[in-house]
Amino acid sequence: MSSAEEIAKAAKVAFEDSQLVPSAERVNALRHIREALQSNKNEILAANRQDLEAAQAEVDAGRMSESLLKRLDLDKGDKWDSMLQGVSDVAELPDPTEIVSYAKELDDGLELYRVSCPIGVLLVIFEARPEVVVNITALAIKSGNAAILKGGKESNRTTQLLSQAIAAGLAQSSLPETYVQTIQTRAEVSSLLALDQYIDLVIPRGSNSLVQNIQNNTRIPVMGHADGLCSVYLDESADDEKAVRVVLDSKTDYPSACNSTETLIIHESLLQTTWPVVARALLEANVRLLCDAATLSALQTLSPPPPNLTTLTGPSTPESYTTEHLTLTLSVLALPSLTAAVRFINAHSSHHTDCIVTESERAAAAFCRGVDSAGTFVNASTRFADGFRYGFGTEVGISTGRIHARGPVGLEGLVIYKYMLRSTGARGHVVGDFGAGGKQYKHVDIAAATLPF
Amino acid sequence: MSSAEEIAKAAKVAFEDSQLVPSAERVNALRHIREALQSNKNEILAANRQDLEAAQAEVDAGRMSESLLKRLDLDKGDKWDSMLQGVSDVAELPDPTEIVSYAKELDDGLELYRVSCPIGVLLVIFEARPEVVVNITALAIKSGNAAILKGGKESNRTTQLLSQAIAAGLAQSSLPETYVQTIQTRAEVSSLLALDQYIDLVIPRGSNSLVQNIQNNTRIPVMGHADGLCSVYLDESADDEKAVRVVLDSKTDYPSACNSTETLIIHESLLQTTWPVVARALLEANVRLLCDAATLSALQTLSPPPPNLTTLTGPSTPESYTTEHLTLTLSVLALPSLTAAVRFINAHSSHHTDCIVTESERAAAAFCRGVDSAGTFVNASTRFADGFRYGFGTEVGISTGRIHARGPVGLEGLVIYKYMLRSTGARGHVVGDFGAGGKQYKHVDIAAATLPF
Repeated sequence: MSSAEEIAKAAKVAFEDSQLVPSAERVNALRHIREALQSNKNEILAANRQDLEAAQAEVDAGRMSESLLKRLDLDKGDKWDSMLQGVSDVAELPDPTEIVSYAKELDDGLELYRVSCPIGVLLVIFEARPEVVVNITALAIKSGNAAILKGGKESNRTTQLLSQAIAAGLAQSSLPETYVQTIQTRAEVSSLLALDQYIDLVIPRGSNSLVQNIQNNTRIPVMGHADGLCSVYLDESADDEKAVRVVLDSKTDYPSACNSTETLIIHESLLQTTWPVVARALLEANVRLLCDAATLSALQTLSPPPPNLTTLTGPSTPESYTTEHLTLTLSVLALPSLTAAVRFINAHSSHHTDCIVTESERAAAAFCRGVDSAGTFVNASTRFADGFRYGFGTEVGISTGRIHARGPVGLEGLVIYKYMLRSTGARGHVVGDFGAGGKQYKHVDIAAATLPF
Repeated sequence: MSSAEEIAKAAKVAFEDSQLVPSAERVNALRHIREALQSNKNEILAANRQDLEAAQAEVDAGRMSESLLKRLDLDKGDKWDSMLQGVSDVAELPDPTEIVSYAKELDDGLELYRVSCPIGVLLVIFEARPEVVVNITALAIKSGNAAILKGGKESNRTTQLLSQAIAAGLAQSSLPETYVQTIQTRAEVSSLLALDQYIDLVIPRGSNSLVQNIQNNTRIPVMGHADGLCSVYLDESADDEKAVRVVLDSKTDYPSACNSTETLIIHESLLQTTWPVVARALLEANVRLLCDAATLSALQTLSPPPPNLTTLTGPSTPESYTTEHLTLTLSVLALPSLTAAVRFINAHSSHHTDCIVTESERAAAAFCRGVDSAGTFVNASTRFADGFRYGFGTEVGISTGRIHARGPVGLEGLVIYKYMLRSTGARGHVVGDFGAGGKQYKHVDIAAATLPF
């Protein structure tokens, strides 16, 4: 058993040693990993059944939720096959490294290239779902990063066998054996969070409390999101049908997802028109409505009354508007203007994804610029905020941070860049030759998508 | 006097309110700020003289260094004029916001745009040089960020008047008054570092201890660098003239700069050939050499002996190779291979900028990929690592971090992006219409450099 520091150091060395391994070899490693997983399928699923049995006992004893249990199951539906297909899909994505994004000739024979490259060592911490170990391994390897993975303790048996298969696959490539490592205990996580000299980025995927706990206990950069408190604003020019469709989909398509909507803001002018139509559709879909005084009283005078009115509507509290319900519950309020709606969203949302329903292009433009969130949508469900739907071919996670990567994060979020400067001049290049009385910088664009050396 | 929380909250509100102000107005504000500075020049320079007198007393009492005193002087040479010119230069740079970097049609009438936008509220902490308050103000305003600035206490009188001129300039634009605020005390900084709900990025510019102290005391992302421990490696195929020129310039052009070289690594095969030539040039330039056994003994047998040999050469210690000398001192060692040099640099450098002197394209390519630093240079002085020299037109600072921005940072480092998704479909767009039996995502590229709305 290695100490956390040994694991972190080994990851850093593996990362550094891998920098001279061509990227094609990373794709090759993913192929071997897929094969190793497939040929160990029976053992892995047997371990998964043991995890499930232990979890069932926890559920029976009331110490674990049914939904957590379900997420553990690796043999459910097409989960196994789609996990393997995911490895192949990631392998086939374009290489995110060695892309030149800035190239200038600073002087005759002095060329500067900004080139994308991996970040370094990733520490990925997630809960319950064991297939994440495979997803993240594929993403890390494809983008050239070393990784240390920690799954939920409920899936320890499964992730251990998945890790063995990953190691077996890696061993058939020229990538270092310690390129992807798995740890099992929370104590190791705590130790690793202090090792910023070896670990470059922490990616937590799980509950709000998991993410916040990690953010509060490390100086390593953290990429992810704690809350998904999304909202929909019905502007005074909102079309009724669009309003109903967008609100319903945003709330009911998958209520426990981070991109589901938790708050509905109604322009005051719609209280007797669009709002009753939308409310009726929501109540028919069994959505519980926590309303402010204006939106509540607008419902109570309707004739005929909407279904479920007495059972599913009630007054909101100030906390309703900062709560991520994750269930079929929606907080509702009325506001007098677009400006008021933008201010309310900026003060209450988690800066994840917010939507305006409007027929006014001017209102749309103002909302999209004024709302300070990773996603600002017009007449489209907040549920579109997703790496696959955005066309990235994969998703590392969703970030509500303001630097590096924001919103759904694809492979691009796992790379950074470095600057390579090359002198081909007969005497090399020195800055002392430039300046007053000397040479001037040329700063001429070089047309290059890849490095010339 | 406002509390730190009031200042931070005001900055956030100013940032949010500014999102609907067109970027041309930011350029206009910079013009007014330049004018306000110019028309208050006499008062500002008078305050600066007071700061200088107080500092002189500190120097006389042995509590402040001469170099710190010099950096305070705003009236030295063309400093004042170039400070004002800097405001105009930044104003004229291309707008870094509202640039579309990804645009896809997800479905007929459903368009996704990734658009660059400001980060939010910057907290900038710097030491001594009062002109930085003006530089950073220009960068923040140009990129659309609100800013809170804290200068060194030695320049309090000067920065206070600079801030008043900035406020007067802002007041003549439609940007909020609290868009740029200045604070004076360390206690305020400590309070602000805890307010991650209002402050989005901390940029420290100053000593190693200032930067490390900030990194250790906030969960807000920090952009900058603590150390600048750069190195030059002379490969076995190094050309003598290039070696001499690059090493001399890297060490002596401006020894106290972060991009100066602190460590020289010699391939063992050069101990009796290139190394004596380079050492002679360094000793002639009064560079003190801290040598390992091999490089030291190679010098001691030279005939004729190099100048200053006995006074300027001596044995290194392990600490020599992790010390940022910032003076005319260079740590030297010999290693047996390129691989050993890359490993040594990755273990000892601060990942800022490292250089190889070589005639081998293969060695250059391996060094540039294998060395895990923000800049990897071939036959070019480490002193080229600079935003102006790179052609950015400005420099926010130099980052040794691995996410968001790395190396010299231009205006691009002060922006992030958001995703805007717009449905122009007759019924809006919902995810429930996609998937098994429904619609498929199109993911067709849209050719757009700017937003259509």
